[in-house]
Amino acid sequence: MHERYVIRRLGECKVPSPLESSFFVEPGGGILVDATVAGCKACKGEPPHLEQAGPRRSVYFDPVSCGAAIVTCGGLCPGLNDVIRALTMVLWYRYGVRRILGLQYGYEGLVPSFGHEPIILTPEIVEDIHQKGGTILGSSRGPQDVPTMLNFLVANRIQLLFTIGGDGTQRGALEIVQEAEKRQLDLAVIGIPKTIDNDVSFTDRTFGFETAIAMTRAPLNAAHMEARGARNGVGLVKLMGRESGFVAAYATLASSDANLVLIPEVPFRLEKVLTWLEARLARKSHALIVAAEGAGQDLVTEAGTDASGNRKLGDIGLFLKKAITAHFREQKVEVNVKYIDPSYTIRSAPASADDSVFCFHLGEKAVHAAMSGRTGMVVGLWNGHFVHVPMEEAVSARKKIDPAGAFWQSVLDNTGQPSRLM
Amino acid sequence: MHERYVIRRLGECKVPSPLESSFFVEPGGGILVDATVAGCKACKGEPPHLEQAGPRRSVYFDPVSCGAAIVTCGGLCPGLNDVIRALTMVLWYRYGVRRILGLQYGYEGLVPSFGHEPIILTPEIVEDIHQKGGTILGSSRGPQDVPTMLNFLVANRIQLLFTIGGDGTQRGALEIVQEAEKRQLDLAVIGIPKTIDNDVSFTDRTFGFETAIAMTRAPLNAAHMEARGARNGVGLVKLMGRESGFVAAYATLASSDANLVLIPEVPFRLEKVLTWLEARLARKSHALIVAAEGAGQDLVTEAGTDASGNRKLGDIGLFLKKAITAHFREQKVEVNVKYIDPSYTIRSAPASADDSVFCFHLGEKAVHAAMSGRTGMVVGLWNGHFVHVPMEEAVSARKKIDPAGAFWQSVLDNTGQPSRLM
Amino acid sequence: MHERYVIRRLGECKVPSPLESSFFVEPGGGILVDATVAGCKACKGEPPHLEQAGPRRSVYFDPVSCGAAIVTCGGLCPGLNDVIRALTMVLWYRYGVRRILGLQYGYEGLVPSFGHEPIILTPEIVEDIHQKGGTILGSSRGPQDVPTMLNFLVANRIQLLFTIGGDGTQRGALEIVQEAEKRQLDLAVIGIPKTIDNDVSFTDRTFGFETAIAMTRAPLNAAHMEARGARNGVGLVKLMGRESGFVAAYATLASSDANLVLIPEVPFRLEKVLTWLEARLARKSHALIVAAEGAGQDLVTEAGTDASGNRKLGDIGLFLKKAITAHFREQKVEVNVKYIDPSYTIRSAPASADDSVFCFHLGEKAVHAAMSGRTGMVVGLWNGHFVHVPMEEAVSARKKIDPAGAFWQSVLDNTGQPSRLM
Amino acid sequence: MHERYVIRRLGECKVPSPLESSFFVEPGGGILVDATVAGCKACKGEPPHLEQAGPRRSVYFDPVSCGAAIVTCGGLCPGLNDVIRALTMVLWYRYGVRRILGLQYGYEGLVPSFGHEPIILTPEIVEDIHQKGGTILGSSRGPQDVPTMLNFLVANRIQLLFTIGGDGTQRGALEIVQEAEKRQLDLAVIGIPKTIDNDVSFTDRTFGFETAIAMTRAPLNAAHMEARGARNGVGLVKLMGRESGFVAAYATLASSDANLVLIPEVPFRLEKVLTWLEARLARKSHALIVAAEGAGQDLVTEAGTDASGNRKLGDIGLFLKKAITAHFREQKVEVNVKYIDPSYTIRSAPASADDSVFCFHLGEKAVHAAMSGRTGMVVGLWNGHFVHVPMEEAVSARKKIDPAGAFWQSVLDNTGQPSRLM
Repeated sequence: MHERYVIRRLGECKVPSPLESSFFVEPGGGILVDATVAGCKACKGEPPHLEQAGPRRSVYFDPVSCGAAIVTCGGLCPGLNDVIRALTMVLWYRYGVRRILGLQYGYEGLVPSFGHEPIILTPEIVEDIHQKGGTILGSSRGPQDVPTMLNFLVANRIQLLFTIGGDGTQRGALEIVQEAEKRQLDLAVIGIPKTIDNDVSFTDRTFGFETAIAMTRAPLNAAHMEARGARNGVGLVKLMGRESGFVAAYATLASSDANLVLIPEVPFRLEKVLTWLEARLARKSHALIVAAEGAGQDLVTEAGTDASGNRKLGDIGLFLKKAITAHFREQKVEVNVKYIDPSYTIRSAPASADDSVFCFHLGEKAVHAAMSGRTGMVVGLWNGHFVHVPMEEAVSARKKIDPAGAFWQSVLDNTGQPSRLM
Repeated sequence: MHERYVIRRLGECKVPSPLESSFFVEPGGGILVDATVAGCKACKGEPPHLEQAGPRRSVYFDPVSCGAAIVTCGGLCPGLNDVIRALTMVLWYRYGVRRILGLQYGYEGLVPSFGHEPIILTPEIVEDIHQKGGTILGSSRGPQDVPTMLNFLVANRIQLLFTIGGDGTQRGALEIVQEAEKRQLDLAVIGIPKTIDNDVSFTDRTFGFETAIAMTRAPLNAAHMEARGARNGVGLVKLMGRESGFVAAYATLASSDANLVLIPEVPFRLEKVLTWLEARLARKSHALIVAAEGAGQDLVTEAGTDASGNRKLGDIGLFLKKAITAHFREQKVEVNVKYIDPSYTIRSAPASADDSVFCFHLGEKAVHAAMSGRTGMVVGLWNGHFVHVPMEEAVSARKKIDPAGAFWQSVLDNTGQPSRLM
Repeated sequence: MHERYVIRRLGECKVPSPLESSFFVEPGGGILVDATVAGCKACKGEPPHLEQAGPRRSVYFDPVSCGAAIVTCGGLCPGLNDVIRALTMVLWYRYGVRRILGLQYGYEGLVPSFGHEPIILTPEIVEDIHQKGGTILGSSRGPQDVPTMLNFLVANRIQLLFTIGGDGTQRGALEIVQEAEKRQLDLAVIGIPKTIDNDVSFTDRTFGFETAIAMTRAPLNAAHMEARGARNGVGLVKLMGRESGFVAAYATLASSDANLVLIPEVPFRLEKVLTWLEARLARKSHALIVAAEGAGQDLVTEAGTDASGNRKLGDIGLFLKKAITAHFREQKVEVNVKYIDPSYTIRSAPASADDSVFCFHLGEKAVHAAMSGRTGMVVGLWNGHFVHVPMEEAVSARKKIDPAGAFWQSVLDNTGQPSRLM
Repeated sequence: MHERYVIRRLGECKVPSPLESSFFVEPGGGILVDATVAGCKACKGEPPHLEQAGPRRSVYFDPVSCGAAIVTCGGLCPGLNDVIRALTMVLWYRYGVRRILGLQYGYEGLVPSFGHEPIILTPEIVEDIHQKGGTILGSSRGPQDVPTMLNFLVANRIQLLFTIGGDGTQRGALEIVQEAEKRQLDLAVIGIPKTIDNDVSFTDRTFGFETAIAMTRAPLNAAHMEARGARNGVGLVKLMGRESGFVAAYATLASSDANLVLIPEVPFRLEKVLTWLEARLARKSHALIVAAEGAGQDLVTEAGTDASGNRKLGDIGLFLKKAITAHFREQKVEVNVKYIDPSYTIRSAPASADDSVFCFHLGEKAVHAAMSGRTGMVVGLWNGHFVHVPMEEAVSARKKIDPAGAFWQSVLDNTGQPSRLM
């Protein structure tokens, strides 16, 4: 196995799996990193691949004595409760784990001085939570002191820690793994990557993304209606996407009403946008513009980072609204800019049916991985298969839209916008 | 009949109705203005009442030679297309009117210099428009020159004008009526009151209001989820309601998650709200506040009026967001304020099923009224019956929530908020 | 007061209301039964009117010692949980009643031999139940032994009984009232009329009706799409409406796609329907037919009654499906009949936002009535006002569509169907 | 390239692509049929792979002279209009094809004697059709005479034929391809596989499937509510799935309320189901059963095939309803079986946002394939990539749930049902 894809193991699996299952992942399998012919041919010997996720015939931990803990960090995302539910259900019913703690308000929940009491999770508690958005555990941004968190886990006899969160969260989880190794603790830390932006490496799709796309329909349609409802109406919608424009681009394909999409991967000049808009309004009297929140950050730079360590973003939506209004006022042309920022409504929605199923699979695979003594990894979906991805790989780089690739070309074709606005 | 409720008539109805109908409103009927026992007893002789809406056995206009025009003014509202559809369908299929113009962009559509060509409306054109939000005619704010508009109507041989809009629109319609009287023109001008705020006098309910309440569920739920998802999370939602708090109050009753509702009818002091919020967060760690856009205007005064002649409103939502953030920063308490302004998404939604039916009735009644030669009136719903209301009465005063009444008491009970924040 | 509208009272109200309210209904008010001018003029002296619902300054029961019970009977209906929630919340928070029993499975819950333990209702239990369809109490059809039920209420020290159900339920409630009178028990029995058919006398609208109309959109649209998707496609949808066609008629107005609506109030001959359908298919190649379940019962008679005492209905939907298929097979014309019966999906839906508000008001008014010692009555909405209706009046006759009235004429105009198919 | 995956080509591509695109698929690429390590290692030399879909630098047809035709066959499926729209938009705007025919009512549309006039498709016509369910072209079942259809295509100067349909449709398309080869016609026939059952070989997902899962939520929830609302309530839902249980299984995972799922791949004995149900009702008083329409066909055999050549299915839903009712009546236990068959409502729904995007990609890839002179193939999604699949392979076998695999185990765990009911 290529070294960069090797998963950390706490030790040998000696306990027969308690699962009454007819299916187990057999050793030796693996999903190719590159599923093209070229990829297969290129490699001599063992091709680079990712370990397949799923239940193993033998496990590392004795479920009876196991304690598990779940934490959700960062911003809301559809499906958080589904993942909490899946983790709890599979731990409880399939492995017989009876001590499951829901840690409150992100990593703060592992730091006693905050005073957040863990919630005892049982099937009764989680039964219906997937029907609601948000997270029943609450969340927070930012890291906490690693030794303190380790002490908390030891004190609460936790062997299985599930970290649901983005880049920063999984980096924090990795530090917990490293500290646990130093202390030689039997602690399995499994991440479930959470980013509504869908920009995690080695995962085709992140949970909540599909729901987010569905939830963009109403605001995009609203902006379109507002634009058409007024002479020279300009609908302007800001969508999620700090460093990758997947939400904005997919939303555009799904709605088919947008005339211009701005994403972080494709820089633009303001004057070019304004010139384009003039021509569009002259021709059609209305326009719909979609901007990912990370688009055009060179135009709206702001200093500093937020508590999660994310670069602070300037507000490209308000910037465009003001710039457009000012430009046409100068030209003595009346325009009606209607600006919508639907982010909170999108990210707090309950998961769609398909996302619910996806979250169930993610939670289930995470439990299988943890029980088998794997650690320092996240569950991913790659080339259509659930896989184990080392945390280092998962956080190494973001997935981005290739401005020279097939997908962006489809988006350009869909909007009819110029391929360059520089 | 009491003079203030008398409806203008263009003349005697001599044309037998072309309707193949088994139902006609007979003369002499009328719906009591006050349906209580006290009201009935108080009046000597003829009790104050409103004319009942519906088809008449004889009509004033000969449908064959009739031309009709429809105009939509002011902000978007769910159901606009339903009303346009109903007017067109009933004119076409029931009365046989074949010349129906959809005037573009509000009253601008009656002023040739704007260059907005009317849309020729037929059943094919309007068949499916009710499935979409917005208005296929476009809209604009503000009045136009009355003689110019009259000239346009004369030039286009229009006898029936339907004005869908709010206070300002119906005031404009009244001026058209008066100018037509002066010129002795056979012009019937019938208004369909449009205000998502539900604050028209003599109408229990305005179209779009019910849809609006349904559409508030998602943002209120989102704000609730965001508030619960963070320590000291404060969800803050601004809803429609310039001078009346019906949308905010109904939305609160429908959601049952709000802890504080601020409406224009009930003034408050900022310090009282902040003190209340401190106590709430100390007790529950999260809070949901709903504010009607017209609430607390004494705190955020702004000068001037918009093109419709409406007083400009200060932004109470942003004001509260800043005030809350500043207050707790001073107190060194971390709070997470999540502010949602869903107005555009709400008002551009397609009508709910029940609102669709309601719009059909409004449009139908408006056509019956116009064909019978009535003018200078709007169609209302009073004590459960469709009625004719003189435009003067409809725009004379706004319907408001009575802070000492049963409804507001229900809202207070629902949120558990203090009855006074002064 | 007219005798038929007089509400039974257990005795004088001597306890000052515990409500912290600025609003109380003052004695002497009342809502006219007939809100037309003619009605007002016709009456000499006191006009017939219904008592206004709402809180009274003095109440009959001492809340501290009160026990309340809630029962839901008959078929599911959107809003059942909303009413249960409202009753519980208002009893608990506004009057301070702390003993509230949720009786399980309808009147069976008052008969110990069934072994259904009551559910203890508290604000925590009911907090979120309105977000779900169905009833958390379960339901059943049919009456139970009245003395046994009285014994149960006495044994459980219940003074306030809320019966949520249809005709049969309120008749059963009336028997309980009469038995309680005989035994001189201080028992207030207040009904909340539940019929998705919207056919209760003296109530403009029943809870769940509006939600039901909204829920008909998907199946009607589906049937329309299926009909258009095949050559000579016939979409056929059976909707609720045993003796009144309100659901079918409103659904038709809301959808605007139906070409024929059959309701119980308007009899028809099968041959006429088939002839109409032949012509329609020849002209348009597709058709959408909506039938209320109670339509055409002379054609599909079945003997007997169900457990609720309702006449058993023959299945008009399947009958039409078979008749149409057979008829065209005989004519050697291929038709594709797609039959949809969406009743369960409609009636088990959670209440719409507006229905939620309506249910809150109904529950609240029912509690006010019970606390004031009223009994043997249901809460209604008449001429736009919440009122008290004696149970005898409420169950005396069903509200029906008048085939010669304005509403049915609107429906005929909407579908373009022949006014007579006899 | 492995012979079975080779795509038919009409000839060399000599025309430079008219696309203004920065992205083209380069020759030599390909997606591995087996993306596992084992698969890669097993193959000597060229590993089995599928051609990658997408635009080519050179195309076969000159767009200017091209005529295209689109046909939809078989039952409705969410997304049909999205695919029609994508085909039209990409043909028109990207390749400049100006003659696009929408053939009516499936293969009947290629047979002049039926008299179905083709619809001329333009961007204006298709602009908003994706917002509606069904197919604007209509559909029909069954094959038509191949030479006649070829004659029609020749007469109408069609070079590009797009066949949207299931197994039978693509078999029919293959016959057209073979007849065209015989006649040496320049005809590219590209299929877009349509099966709401998601059981096409070499495609991870078929369009409409995800929407279907979303649409099962309401009926499953309704059945659950009905089951809980009555003592010994049994909710029974029949879902799509003739030979594969994907819809039923996914719907179960998405809802988490089902207690028993029956699918075609896993046979069962009726007595075992009834015994299980007895135990379930004794323990919980309610149950929710989901059955794929193809489940238990040995119990309900019916002779013959439908017009599409599909084996006729017995009605397992009605069978179970009757069997359960009879069984408990015999046992003198009252049960309330509520049976829901939501198929028409599910399959006629408009596509979800994500399905819309998926349909756009399918249509786009189909056009690229056709323009490049490929024929006798369908567009698939394999290991996360869009690929070309020879029609023979696509119709060779159905994708099925492996009763010994990971997915079915997840479903069993989710319901808690016995793994064997034989």
